[in-house]
Amino acid sequence: MTQLEAARRGEITPEMVLVAKKEGVDPEILRKRIAEGTVVIPANNHRPHLNPCGIGQGLRTKVNANIGTSPSRPDIAAELEKLRAALEAGADTVMDLSTVWVRECRRRILSASPVPVGTVPVYQVASEAQDEHGSIVEFTASDLFRVIEEQAADGVDFMTVHCGVTLEVVERLKREGRIADIVSRGGSILLGWMLYHEKENPLYAEYDRLLEIARRFDVTLSLGDGLRPGCLSDATDRAQIQELLILGELVDRAREAGVQVMVEGPGHVPLQAVEANVLLEKRLCHGAPFYVLGPIVTDVAPGYDHIAAAIGGALAASSGADFICVVTPAEHLGLPTVEDVREGVIAARLAAHVADLVKGVPGAWEWDRAMGEARKALDWEKQIALALDPVKAERYRRERNVAFEETCSMCGSFCAMRLVERYLGKTGMRC
Amino acid sequence: MTQLEAARRGEITPEMVLVAKKEGVDPEILRKRIAEGTVVIPANNHRPHLNPCGIGQGLRTKVNANIGTSPSRPDIAAELEKLRAALEAGADTVMDLSTVWVRECRRRILSASPVPVGTVPVYQVASEAQDEHGSIVEFTASDLFRVIEEQAADGVDFMTVHCGVTLEVVERLKREGRIADIVSRGGSILLGWMLYHEKENPLYAEYDRLLEIARRFDVTLSLGDGLRPGCLSDATDRAQIQELLILGELVDRAREAGVQVMVEGPGHVPLQAVEANVLLEKRLCHGAPFYVLGPIVTDVAPGYDHIAAAIGGALAASSGADFICVVTPAEHLGLPTVEDVREGVIAARLAAHVADLVKGVPGAWEWDRAMGEARKALDWEKQIALALDPVKAERYRRERNVAFEETCSMCGSFCAMRLVERYLGKTGMRC
Repeated sequence: MTQLEAARRGEITPEMVLVAKKEGVDPEILRKRIAEGTVVIPANNHRPHLNPCGIGQGLRTKVNANIGTSPSRPDIAAELEKLRAALEAGADTVMDLSTVWVRECRRRILSASPVPVGTVPVYQVASEAQDEHGSIVEFTASDLFRVIEEQAADGVDFMTVHCGVTLEVVERLKREGRIADIVSRGGSILLGWMLYHEKENPLYAEYDRLLEIARRFDVTLSLGDGLRPGCLSDATDRAQIQELLILGELVDRAREAGVQVMVEGPGHVPLQAVEANVLLEKRLCHGAPFYVLGPIVTDVAPGYDHIAAAIGGALAASSGADFICVVTPAEHLGLPTVEDVREGVIAARLAAHVADLVKGVPGAWEWDRAMGEARKALDWEKQIALALDPVKAERYRRERNVAFEETCSMCGSFCAMRLVERYLGKTGMRC
Repeated sequence: MTQLEAARRGEITPEMVLVAKKEGVDPEILRKRIAEGTVVIPANNHRPHLNPCGIGQGLRTKVNANIGTSPSRPDIAAELEKLRAALEAGADTVMDLSTVWVRECRRRILSASPVPVGTVPVYQVASEAQDEHGSIVEFTASDLFRVIEEQAADGVDFMTVHCGVTLEVVERLKREGRIADIVSRGGSILLGWMLYHEKENPLYAEYDRLLEIARRFDVTLSLGDGLRPGCLSDATDRAQIQELLILGELVDRAREAGVQVMVEGPGHVPLQAVEANVLLEKRLCHGAPFYVLGPIVTDVAPGYDHIAAAIGGALAASSGADFICVVTPAEHLGLPTVEDVREGVIAARLAAHVADLVKGVPGAWEWDRAMGEARKALDWEKQIALALDPVKAERYRRERNVAFEETCSMCGSFCAMRLVERYLGKTGMRC
């Protein structure tokens, strides 16, 4: 029985109890939201030792970090180090996007990760096709579902499946005349498969087969946006919205089958269109949790895409997006290093927290208030303890100040806090 | 004659011609905006070799970098190095916020900077008071105006003057019951002065004296927000808005006197209140250019305040703010290093550009479009040339890729660009 099925029967599962406690929400309210599909708990029923988290309406905005091998960096140990860095930096979930040593890497990550793990099964199929037949697209629909079942049996908690890349959508894409066409790796593999084999996307044509596996293992489906824009000029166009319409219908079918489901979103979006993208997803997909990749709000910031994504992510989540995928400073330039992953996770958590202040998530406002009070009191120990990243805050404080002083090297004797305390506090002392 | 006076007489000055050309706007439209006060050109008429820039309606969002000595870092050479870094990173203006060796540092910066230079004259007065009388507040109104005139004669292009920190505002502040009271350094000095001497703020009481000097040298006044909130809990409160009402009146008086004027704004603001803060300034200050410090949208991100500020700055400028003050990663922790200044400037420029895409500033959209096309073409040389920070983009590309390849180490043979080109482009090749 999936979390969704249990919720519908009025049952509060141990996972729901745990999530409700962590979020400070009433378990019965949480159950209702899971039953109506506005919250998911990605927790494979074959996955031991999972610390589950909830994603969706009324909950803290969650952050996912991507890790995984690539053809030019086929080093599993390096990816496990990134896993540790992502967890230390506070990632709520991780996705293994390996395209080399896929099975091995996934199993190592699953056994090392206490948080939910997601995958993109088509990468494994494509990787095996390349190894065995010399081409990424030389696989069958059965190969794809075999791999999905293998990954589900391994304990994967959520899977990105690009079910909305259909022949209809591809026709609309051609007529649209995009600059960057398709930039989704999974979407492009399926596009290649469809055009090469001249067949409909098996994840769409045989969606019920996918639902059956997902239901059996309680894998949460993350409906991928294969048509997500790859530059601002392509954002919110007919190709993107056509796919979203299809994803909305697939949300309904997943829920009918008792399968938990969320929807993925862009991508590259100009700031003025971010809110509209969230509103559209929420409406067209009947309130399914929205999982956004950034969005980044300009194309011209390679090396700083974590900041471009923090701007878009803060605004998207403030408008209702539930789950933010980390974009690292290495985006558009290469595979991220451990440090890139760490910086990316913190930037995404910052964006998520900014949104949680807007959403009124329990505890969010109190955190900022406590920091304001610690600053006013010039209590440096408390300021560092309250910092989003205490390690970096402590290092900055240490490196940028001669010795431990009440004030800091920015102002010294010109410290506004001290001046105001002296004069407004009427202690009568002169600074 | 000031730029404002010239514009009112229908005269297009050489500075207006230069600014209009750089911005791609019609000189006559620019002149009209200067005449009505929605655009300023900070350009002291005693300043040789200035490359002027315009700030305000319809122009590219500008970025200011703060530099300057502090009591624990009284090193002018280090600050000149920060000036170079800020200029290299693309800062449009710099402010010298020195509190030690103030005169010397300012003169060195003025002679080394091709861009407009701003100051906060009360720092010099307070610094001299401390040196000569052992207290920051042991100065007279005449001392203050003497320093303002000295700085104007030195060629300072714009000055932050906290004219709105009045006895009335301080009373309202006390009744408000803030967490962080006053966090503005200049605001706190004036507060201390007013309470210690039991007198009204001379910048308010003798505002005409200030206007006379500003008009003579065409110094643009930047009306400081001494009451800007120092934490989210204090944002947009009665103390802040009371000061803004007063600043609005002072804008009118400056314009009447032929003095160019802009208004400074927060600070710490929750994301949902950013737009309202901009709307309020624009309405209450009759369209005066708005110069924001960030705003940062959470208090809990020391070490990452450049990102918190990029979020707030992008949103503020999208809503109409004209000028963004850089917040570096060292904010709240200490005096920034050269690298901090660099990172801060780039983050602020990123935010400014994101807003320029929303504002429809000429050339903004074309820049992103060119990057999208370069990505689609896998043209790495062009991508790096188009990057907001080509130096960092080139370094990331070099460090994260084994050798020069068409694709990158993120995807390698799984490159979506290449896959789509093969199949959608119908070249018939298999990947």
